Amino acid sequence: MTAAAFVTLEGGEGAGKSTVLAHIRDYLAAAGIDAQFTREPGGTPAGEAIRGVLLDPAYRGLCAESELLLMFAARAQLVRDVVRPALAAGRWVVSDRFTDASFAYQGGGRGQPEARIADLEAWAADGLRPDLTLLLDLPVAQGMARAGSRGGEADRIEREQLDFFERVRAAYRARAAADPERFRPIDASRPIGDVLVQVERTLARFLSARSAP
Amino acid sequence: MTAAAFVTLEGGEGAGKSTVLAHIRDYLAAAGIDAQFTREPGGTPAGEAIRGVLLDPAYRGLCAESELLLMFAARAQLVRDVVRPALAAGRWVVSDRFTDASFAYQGGGRGQPEARIADLEAWAADGLRPDLTLLLDLPVAQGMARAGSRGGEADRIEREQLDFFERVRAAYRARAAADPERFRPIDASRPIGDVLVQVERTLARFLSARSAP
Repeated sequence: MTAAAFVTLEGGEGAGKSTVLAHIRDYLAAAGIDAQFTREPGGTPAGEAIRGVLLDPAYRGLCAESELLLMFAARAQLVRDVVRPALAAGRWVVSDRFTDASFAYQGGGRGQPEARIADLEAWAADGLRPDLTLLLDLPVAQGMARAGSRGGEADRIEREQLDFFERVRAAYRARAAADPERFRPIDASRPIGDVLVQVERTLARFLSARSAP
Repeated sequence: MTAAAFVTLEGGEGAGKSTVLAHIRDYLAAAGIDAQFTREPGGTPAGEAIRGVLLDPAYRGLCAESELLLMFAARAQLVRDVVRPALAAGRWVVSDRFTDASFAYQGGGRGQPEARIADLEAWAADGLRPDLTLLLDLPVAQGMARAGSRGGEADRIEREQLDFFERVRAAYRARAAADPERFRPIDASRPIGDVLVQVERTLARFLSARSAP
């Protein structure tokens, strides 16, 4: 029996998060692990409504403070209604993004002070931190080329410029370097097959460390 | 020439805010004062969308932290897009509720710590405080009876119980007592004609003090 864990997946645009998430789902299912999948911003009815405000290009004038507060408003609800209850019931939780994304996007990208985000993490996110965070890392230009070739309408944040995403990537990498215990950087510039192999090995090591006596 | 001022109107359910606001509008217009009227939560396109999430009875499980963050998300945008620019252009701003409402509803009503709200006031609301705050005060039961007789669907917050509104009222009164320089309590338990006379006298005194050399 492996104790329930909270796993998050982070990364910039075009990093392959959706494909990796589908692979994690299959991998955990094959390992007999009951996991709840969720996403940020969103994951609850109120959170999904907040996501609508956050990503709607109509609100392109949204100030950085408001963006940060909305992210944590959705997160506060997600932690209390989904993540904490699932972990308490012994279920794993896998989230497509979590608080690290606020440090990267609203902190690195928008310049909101790190101390402000850390304070919100403490009370709004109830101090909850993932047990394992997979960071899909790749050069910004490569990610944007992939995201662009996907087609579809870009949301409000996806419409940002190159230098914004460079700051996001730098913030993600700095956080990963500062907490190697929790973060597992994945080289997402490689072909997707290689990326999935890296993800699978990382999960296998995490599982085996977690179930060790 | 009177320097532009930021005036807010606060009060619980059924205090007569709408009637008083209409009266303030007429009074300022008659005095030749160019004023912008706004409301909270809301007052900007993003803010009105956030208001929709805040007041929708569908989200009755919204946690206190999320409610507080959403209020300040709307407020951050209002301060930057409406209040500050209007004041800078020499226009008065009259807002139906502002940060005092968060101290009353999310603080007194929901138990969110005062220091947390003060911190959000400092950075999310950019430290902006009204020059004058009219507090329409009346016993909770009387206000609820009036609000109930108005008919229509109650929003998520209006559906709270008596003791919630008692805590809101107590928090409003404590804030008014602590800052008599800015707050003008209005006895809203009186017939509406008397209330409007009190409001008018208060505005007249404020105007005359402000235009004094």
